Amino acid sequence: MYDIELDWSDNMKILGSVPAKDGFCMPGEFTLHYGCILIWPHRRDSWQNGAYAARRAFVRLIELISMSENVIVCARFEDYDEARRLLPAKVRVVEMSSDDSWARDVAPTFVTDGRTVRGIDWGFNAWGGLVDGLYFPWDKDNKIARKICDLLEKDCYDQRSFILEGGSVHTDGEGTLLTTEECLLSDGRNPSMTKEEIEHKLCETLGVKKIIWLKRGIYNDETNGHIDNICAFTSPAHVVLAWTDDKNDPQYEISKECLEILESSSDAKGRPIKVHKLPLPEPVYITAEECEGLDNMDGEPTRTAGERLAASYVNFYISNKNVIVPQFGDNNDEKALNVLRPLFPGREVIGIPTRDILIGGGNIHCITQQIPQT
Amino acid sequence: MYDIELDWSDNMKILGSVPAKDGFCMPGEFTLHYGCILIWPHRRDSWQNGAYAARRAFVRLIELISMSENVIVCARFEDYDEARRLLPAKVRVVEMSSDDSWARDVAPTFVTDGRTVRGIDWGFNAWGGLVDGLYFPWDKDNKIARKICDLLEKDCYDQRSFILEGGSVHTDGEGTLLTTEECLLSDGRNPSMTKEEIEHKLCETLGVKKIIWLKRGIYNDETNGHIDNICAFTSPAHVVLAWTDDKNDPQYEISKECLEILESSSDAKGRPIKVHKLPLPEPVYITAEECEGLDNMDGEPTRTAGERLAASYVNFYISNKNVIVPQFGDNNDEKALNVLRPLFPGREVIGIPTRDILIGGGNIHCITQQIPQT
Repeated sequence: MYDIELDWSDNMKILGSVPAKDGFCMPGEFTLHYGCILIWPHRRDSWQNGAYAARRAFVRLIELISMSENVIVCARFEDYDEARRLLPAKVRVVEMSSDDSWARDVAPTFVTDGRTVRGIDWGFNAWGGLVDGLYFPWDKDNKIARKICDLLEKDCYDQRSFILEGGSVHTDGEGTLLTTEECLLSDGRNPSMTKEEIEHKLCETLGVKKIIWLKRGIYNDETNGHIDNICAFTSPAHVVLAWTDDKNDPQYEISKECLEILESSSDAKGRPIKVHKLPLPEPVYITAEECEGLDNMDGEPTRTAGERLAASYVNFYISNKNVIVPQFGDNNDEKALNVLRPLFPGREVIGIPTRDILIGGGNIHCITQQIPQT
Repeated sequence: MYDIELDWSDNMKILGSVPAKDGFCMPGEFTLHYGCILIWPHRRDSWQNGAYAARRAFVRLIELISMSENVIVCARFEDYDEARRLLPAKVRVVEMSSDDSWARDVAPTFVTDGRTVRGIDWGFNAWGGLVDGLYFPWDKDNKIARKICDLLEKDCYDQRSFILEGGSVHTDGEGTLLTTEECLLSDGRNPSMTKEEIEHKLCETLGVKKIIWLKRGIYNDETNGHIDNICAFTSPAHVVLAWTDDKNDPQYEISKECLEILESSSDAKGRPIKVHKLPLPEPVYITAEECEGLDNMDGEPTRTAGERLAASYVNFYISNKNVIVPQFGDNNDEKALNVLRPLFPGREVIGIPTRDILIGGGNIHCITQQIPQT
């Protein structure tokens, strides 16, 4: 009676091969998503006042993303009930241990061959390990990628011997990758690899053919200058670049250097890169009151009053229906949205206040990780 | 371009209604399953030697079930890597906190209307709460049902104000429910409810119309006599009953009383109940060595040497292809399989050694929970 052949899926295989050889590549963020992964914030030295305000900011963001994507939120056991209560019913909340809440950097990077989606499990060492990492230990974070593949029933490429965060690479889905030397050549990540070896690794894992190396990321960005805070593809051959006209701002030289590189670069298909300048907000500094809300967990304070935060409008998330952009209560908030609008004709460009996320050390793009739709 | 209407599922709704009113009922275990849930064992005062042997027994069971069902194993953060390593790749391992490992009693009870599957989230108090419960606290266990519904994207009936374990009820899927007074009328569960109120609750939640009340379960069963260790439906109108012919065994009177009740009962459709006697093994006692392998977590030992364990062949699991039956190295092991074989003509009846599970206080049925296929 039940001796029937059922098509049970073979859930998660750990793959020792590399995506490019299997015909897989990382699609551009602007192509269709199945959904998005986030991690419920909890770390008391990252998020002020026990993450109270950060959680509300996450909820606001998630409400927007969940209008057009399946959202999965990973919450620790002790936070599960609150996350479930604050989040819309259509959001899936799953229990998962974590050290902090940067899904972009600890969730899998997804690749696809157009039919199937697979994850890549990179090594994660909290943005620099014992050299200049931001916290210790990071073992819970380093286990998340594989668990998410298991959860989503996606096969998983084992790349744990290579340290990489998702926020340090952007692709156009057509063979071109953007990154920064400041991050990928840092002493705290893969110091034994040459630039050429790292290029080769990126090509075989992300399925790209050409890498555009910017020098540095946003001034005082504690991730060693992640690309996703300074420059992003909005479509193939089009990028936005964080920009200031203030020559006294240390950011000026950094952005100018990026501009020169980009304007003299072509993409994997030979097209010149068209750069759209995205204004930066006036420098944002953390207040003494905000610093007091950060618990001191490991002997040294996370931030000091007056420290400049790495605020940038480039750290947006491209959801299926919306582009969701950080806002800082700055005169340039609206200007930034207006730069982005013509670049995303099929989507509504929406700003949301994210100072409470910025204090944690990143922004909208850093706390999200898209899952491609096939 | 992406302004398209996508059929995003509305994942988990918490339902305040009751299944019967919505046309849902609990199917018989012998109907087709989508899959099966288990919880990776870890509790050091339940499972000897840090659950070493129990884990191997779980793996053996899971390998069999996963031949014909999707198996989901819930593992604590600290056990995840080992579970993933020991289990077949096709098994899905998800992180979930738990107090112990009795999926039958803490996972949702699933109901269906033939098209959709929903879960019921009962209250759980470790088999008797502060009256005669088996451990404290039990808060992690009590949160599992809802989390599994979220994980499986099933709507969830909130019945947390009613204390019930899945192992205390069996249904034929055609309106009849089997249970024991020893358990459901115990002081540690729902002492403020009358028997009639409990009957009403079972009817409206499990979609049954007739309840057959046995008096007591297996002798010295610490669950207050769960039905799933003494009597089970093998098909509508057919049950197996744990049986001994030894009049000096305290179990004799219990089984005889059950037999009399069953033989004078008819099911919801008016059919007489046909009872198939399933021999018990010779009494099984825990050894001093086994007791020494149980850590003492809360001030009193879980078991004492020479204590009789609630061994019974009735605690089998009906998977899509197999009926998987406990074996104790007893003369009756093969006899029990031969009683079951003609009752499950479409399935292979397989025995596996489960003493290492029995020591924990239950057996195969207690550590599994099926998810119906629709």
